[in-house]
Amino acid sequence: MRLLITNCNTTESMTKEIEAGARLAASPGTEIVARTPRWGPESAEGWLDSFLSAAAVLDLLRELTEAGERFDAVVLAGFGEHGREGARELLGVPVVDITEAAAHLACLLGRRYAVVTTLDRTRGLIEDSLHTAGVAANCVAVLGAGLGVLELGDEGRTASALLTAGRRARDRGAEVLVLGCAGMTGLDRRISAELGVPVVDGVAAAVRLAESCVALGLSTSRAGSYAAPLPKERRWRPV
Amino acid sequence: MRLLITNCNTTESMTKEIEAGARLAASPGTEIVARTPRWGPESAEGWLDSFLSAAAVLDLLRELTEAGERFDAVVLAGFGEHGREGARELLGVPVVDITEAAAHLACLLGRRYAVVTTLDRTRGLIEDSLHTAGVAANCVAVLGAGLGVLELGDEGRTASALLTAGRRARDRGAEVLVLGCAGMTGLDRRISAELGVPVVDGVAAAVRLAESCVALGLSTSRAGSYAAPLPKERRWRPV
Amino acid sequence: MRLLITNCNTTESMTKEIEAGARLAASPGTEIVARTPRWGPESAEGWLDSFLSAAAVLDLLRELTEAGERFDAVVLAGFGEHGREGARELLGVPVVDITEAAAHLACLLGRRYAVVTTLDRTRGLIEDSLHTAGVAANCVAVLGAGLGVLELGDEGRTASALLTAGRRARDRGAEVLVLGCAGMTGLDRRISAELGVPVVDGVAAAVRLAESCVALGLSTSRAGSYAAPLPKERRWRPV
Amino acid sequence: MRLLITNCNTTESMTKEIEAGARLAASPGTEIVARTPRWGPESAEGWLDSFLSAAAVLDLLRELTEAGERFDAVVLAGFGEHGREGARELLGVPVVDITEAAAHLACLLGRRYAVVTTLDRTRGLIEDSLHTAGVAANCVAVLGAGLGVLELGDEGRTASALLTAGRRARDRGAEVLVLGCAGMTGLDRRISAELGVPVVDGVAAAVRLAESCVALGLSTSRAGSYAAPLPKERRWRPV
Amino acid sequence: MRLLITNCNTTESMTKEIEAGARLAASPGTEIVARTPRWGPESAEGWLDSFLSAAAVLDLLRELTEAGERFDAVVLAGFGEHGREGARELLGVPVVDITEAAAHLACLLGRRYAVVTTLDRTRGLIEDSLHTAGVAANCVAVLGAGLGVLELGDEGRTASALLTAGRRARDRGAEVLVLGCAGMTGLDRRISAELGVPVVDGVAAAVRLAESCVALGLSTSRAGSYAAPLPKERRWRPV
Amino acid sequence: MRLLITNCNTTESMTKEIEAGARLAASPGTEIVARTPRWGPESAEGWLDSFLSAAAVLDLLRELTEAGERFDAVVLAGFGEHGREGARELLGVPVVDITEAAAHLACLLGRRYAVVTTLDRTRGLIEDSLHTAGVAANCVAVLGAGLGVLELGDEGRTASALLTAGRRARDRGAEVLVLGCAGMTGLDRRISAELGVPVVDGVAAAVRLAESCVALGLSTSRAGSYAAPLPKERRWRPV
Repeated sequence: MRLLITNCNTTESMTKEIEAGARLAASPGTEIVARTPRWGPESAEGWLDSFLSAAAVLDLLRELTEAGERFDAVVLAGFGEHGREGARELLGVPVVDITEAAAHLACLLGRRYAVVTTLDRTRGLIEDSLHTAGVAANCVAVLGAGLGVLELGDEGRTASALLTAGRRARDRGAEVLVLGCAGMTGLDRRISAELGVPVVDGVAAAVRLAESCVALGLSTSRAGSYAAPLPKERRWRPV
Repeated sequence: MRLLITNCNTTESMTKEIEAGARLAASPGTEIVARTPRWGPESAEGWLDSFLSAAAVLDLLRELTEAGERFDAVVLAGFGEHGREGARELLGVPVVDITEAAAHLACLLGRRYAVVTTLDRTRGLIEDSLHTAGVAANCVAVLGAGLGVLELGDEGRTASALLTAGRRARDRGAEVLVLGCAGMTGLDRRISAELGVPVVDGVAAAVRLAESCVALGLSTSRAGSYAAPLPKERRWRPV
Repeated sequence: MRLLITNCNTTESMTKEIEAGARLAASPGTEIVARTPRWGPESAEGWLDSFLSAAAVLDLLRELTEAGERFDAVVLAGFGEHGREGARELLGVPVVDITEAAAHLACLLGRRYAVVTTLDRTRGLIEDSLHTAGVAANCVAVLGAGLGVLELGDEGRTASALLTAGRRARDRGAEVLVLGCAGMTGLDRRISAELGVPVVDGVAAAVRLAESCVALGLSTSRAGSYAAPLPKERRWRPV
Repeated sequence: MRLLITNCNTTESMTKEIEAGARLAASPGTEIVARTPRWGPESAEGWLDSFLSAAAVLDLLRELTEAGERFDAVVLAGFGEHGREGARELLGVPVVDITEAAAHLACLLGRRYAVVTTLDRTRGLIEDSLHTAGVAANCVAVLGAGLGVLELGDEGRTASALLTAGRRARDRGAEVLVLGCAGMTGLDRRISAELGVPVVDGVAAAVRLAESCVALGLSTSRAGSYAAPLPKERRWRPV
Repeated sequence: MRLLITNCNTTESMTKEIEAGARLAASPGTEIVARTPRWGPESAEGWLDSFLSAAAVLDLLRELTEAGERFDAVVLAGFGEHGREGARELLGVPVVDITEAAAHLACLLGRRYAVVTTLDRTRGLIEDSLHTAGVAANCVAVLGAGLGVLELGDEGRTASALLTAGRRARDRGAEVLVLGCAGMTGLDRRISAELGVPVVDGVAAAVRLAESCVALGLSTSRAGSYAAPLPKERRWRPV
Repeated sequence: MRLLITNCNTTESMTKEIEAGARLAASPGTEIVARTPRWGPESAEGWLDSFLSAAAVLDLLRELTEAGERFDAVVLAGFGEHGREGARELLGVPVVDITEAAAHLACLLGRRYAVVTTLDRTRGLIEDSLHTAGVAANCVAVLGAGLGVLELGDEGRTASALLTAGRRARDRGAEVLVLGCAGMTGLDRRISAELGVPVVDGVAAAVRLAESCVALGLSTSRAGSYAAPLPKERRWRPV
């Protein structure tokens, strides 16, 4: 099985981390191909970045498709970022976004879950994404840890901020935590050990859900919302 | 007052129609400036188009801003299309999207409203847009009329399809109709006369709501979701 | 354009303030006519007052109509008070209530808004009014400032109480504030400057929305809920 | 136990029917006192009537109270009509409205219920009333039978119209029906026998619920929404 | 009228208390028969216990029925416990669960209510039970008092813990409290006197609601969800 | 990985089918152990059966645990049946129910899904189960095919009934179908081919989701709702 995972921003080092996390999570026999969009924001923190990122990732998917690359499924590694439904229209294979993926598994593990993310300004994006994915009902809170995406490199500081936010989430009734940023991959077990609750990493969850769809022969429905795009002129870049 | 209105697609003739509709709706003293994005889809009918359109429109807004153009408010003339929240972050002025604008006025005119749009495949986009705008509660249906955006030129056929969809909407309890496409501007009075219900055109509604915000000294909140974008490297468009 | 604005209580001085606020907000060419109901409570603070007020305002509207007065639209200046839907049935013109009007504009300015009102006991009224108007979804809180309607005269104390309540609203996630009492008109800019968020005054918002409907040729739907009242015997006062 | 039941309109014959229905439903030892408001509409069919009725009924309650009349509880016999919360503020005893009462019992008898009422134009009133009473969740439909309140005298025609509407309700998933008008009292058993589902009459339900509150020593909470009205000048009725 | 009330656990002393509470609440002429299931948990505190309890109570109901016992209605005295819908299918008479019963009366007494229960771990059960019963909308909180069911014997400690939880509930906007455990019967008046809000006991509420249904000739709908069980082999115990 | 899958009824042949379906869906290296409860209904079609089944399945899980059997995860193969949360409390490993599992995957494949099940009387059970699992939001309908569980043996008739119900689901907006009965395993591909939409089988989905949790080191949260059961006397089964 060949699985494409796309970063939502242009920071290559983050793509490498996502790739590493995806490989750790993948089943034997799954080939992970990680790609970085050629344009867009260096990190996605807000709606402006998210919409740029969505188009840049879709442009990347189009380019790969036109270059004859084939994948059994695609994972979109941008937590709360837009683009998911467009990728479903564009491609014939299952598309799983790390936001929804983490939420789906979280629902299986406890009665209520919370998302701990980077900056408060991205909370709305994540809430909207969970809502449209149909998994918002059991989410009690989306909480910012007060860290920018590109500050996540300092693992000690990141872990400390996530623990603080995680404790607030527990006070709000969360029985499971979701790490709300692709760049937090790897911290899940540490936070889980300290707080005594399951912590779900979106990249890992999405890889497994994408594999599950492929293994069961399930793909994106073409009946309705995600029918193949209508043929028309689309200028993918300025002329 | 200087008001920018952006088409969501690259079809110049549609920009002209939107401009004409906006001028008819505007107060005396409001200058309407209409612009077409330099890239994107020739019509927006689905998520792929919508995300492409969002980035192209944001790129256009950035370009105008960098060129020193100043506007008192911006109207986004793409029914159900993405981008609204990004434009709010990017600009310091009120941003009103024609989807939400039509819904806001519709809520004032009857207890339940419906949206009559082009193709069924865009229903989900519109439903999601109304939801995130906070005005979905009184919407009883979003119905497709079975017409593509670029087929709207044939006014007789368009009116006939809209009337059929409008009657279905009435059966579902709609007391007010919203025309769910910028390209339908001008048909509102005809449909209203035939069906005996108010029909709201999003372009006209958005122009008036944008003017209202400006006149009352109200602008986008910078506290929270729509704070100015964080300074960072952004590659705004495909290269 | 001739616009009637009705106070919800019998206090003439408050009608004057409302009138002044409406005039400030109105477009050039809009004539503002403000009226006080001839019976009802001297201030509306709770359901009992609200239901008295609703009937008294409807009685006033009936009287004006029977006296041959004509208006292009009506603004109901009672925050959270009942009567709105009855006025729509009674009259053939657009009717806008200041509660819903403020909420509609607030939705355009930020992702979540809150209402800051007089006494906690009126919170339920306002929540219900926002719900039936279809604009409750993005409201995070309705908070009382601990001040009765007739205590609002002391502007310093009022501003101070509103600022305290406004800060609580921000902590609850509000990005925009709505002033939840017609008698607070005029304090919006001061609160906005101190708290750094847009503050919407319902009277101003309603005047602009009513004007917008009239300008666009939109009026109350007669199809369904707000059809003209059935002819029957109605005793508007005890015999 | 002394129980006051108020008609929502000025039609004395309807008060008599309500009184008879209430007596049939009451426990031994419950004294039923039925009263007609001295002003208001001769039947309530829409928001205008409902608001007029609310003030007239509250005026009646005030008059009775000032005349030294004492009741252990009050039943408001107007289906979907306003006033309930105002009566709770005004009086120190339990107040039960026939709309909510019927819905409460209906929830105990089946998983989903529907309301069958007079005219379609009153559907919105009833939906809003169920919502604010907190019992809308299991209601699948509010359906009009196409009959005005004052046409209910023809029992054969009324029963036939209710049966037609009841069958539509069953198709929508209703397992229990509520008769949505005080004037339908007495038809419940007939409809139930023909359709094979329980049919709840609001007057009967409200009498029993009011008795239950009294018997258990439960009364309206004075903490919060329904605190006693603030002392102030109130002109209770048109002059 | 003969009314069966079943304890949800195997603790006979608790059945006695429930029986006493039911007798105090019942109308003259109502015979109360209290029964303890022959198996299941000694107290129900969580889903595992609740599902054991549900089957054990259903087994008890079956046994009584097969033994020829007849009841006019059944009250299930397990707060938040499962089984309600199964009992409705099994029996031809009204079935009222103390969870929903308390909530129904609470809705009549104030705009928002809260449930004060034993341990936090049972909150989810109660929330789900209120939701499926259709009365969750006006519930602002379900709060644990930190006491196990079998610790409720120490009345002083129990009252103190309930008062603390009750004050938290008031801060969350509750105007009415519900005691969320059959074993708390008798404390309602004491808590009410100290907190100044109505306090509803589920056993008392359910007895009165069950009586009301019987008196009005209303019984469980057999049309749809609660049709009589299909004839089939059911092994009610291991072979 | 050793995975236990439990039938919800006592029909051994159905356990065999479930086992076969689970094996087909499982990853290489997953050992499937299928078990039948020793008591309960021969098929589960309604609340009575469901509660009986829940206790019998929990009893089975206890027996296996006490016998020293160890599993890495458990799949509960009863569509819409109760017991899930109790199994989570009882066991220390991930527990996935086929109802929620199918819904989780369906959400990834289309914007709206529907469940096609056996008899209409089980619709409520399934709706409630999806709700408490947090995945009801995108479900447009739960439709019965008019077939009892034990009638599913006639594959032609079953397929035909499912196709009819599936077409109704499509008309309601479903883009993905879920087969709402463990006994329908194997028909998914056939229905999918005929209707042109993805069809999700709950057993297969649950096996993959359970495997995913185990592979990622995620297990049931013990913090809150699903803490280990309190030590107490429990009589687990009828005597």
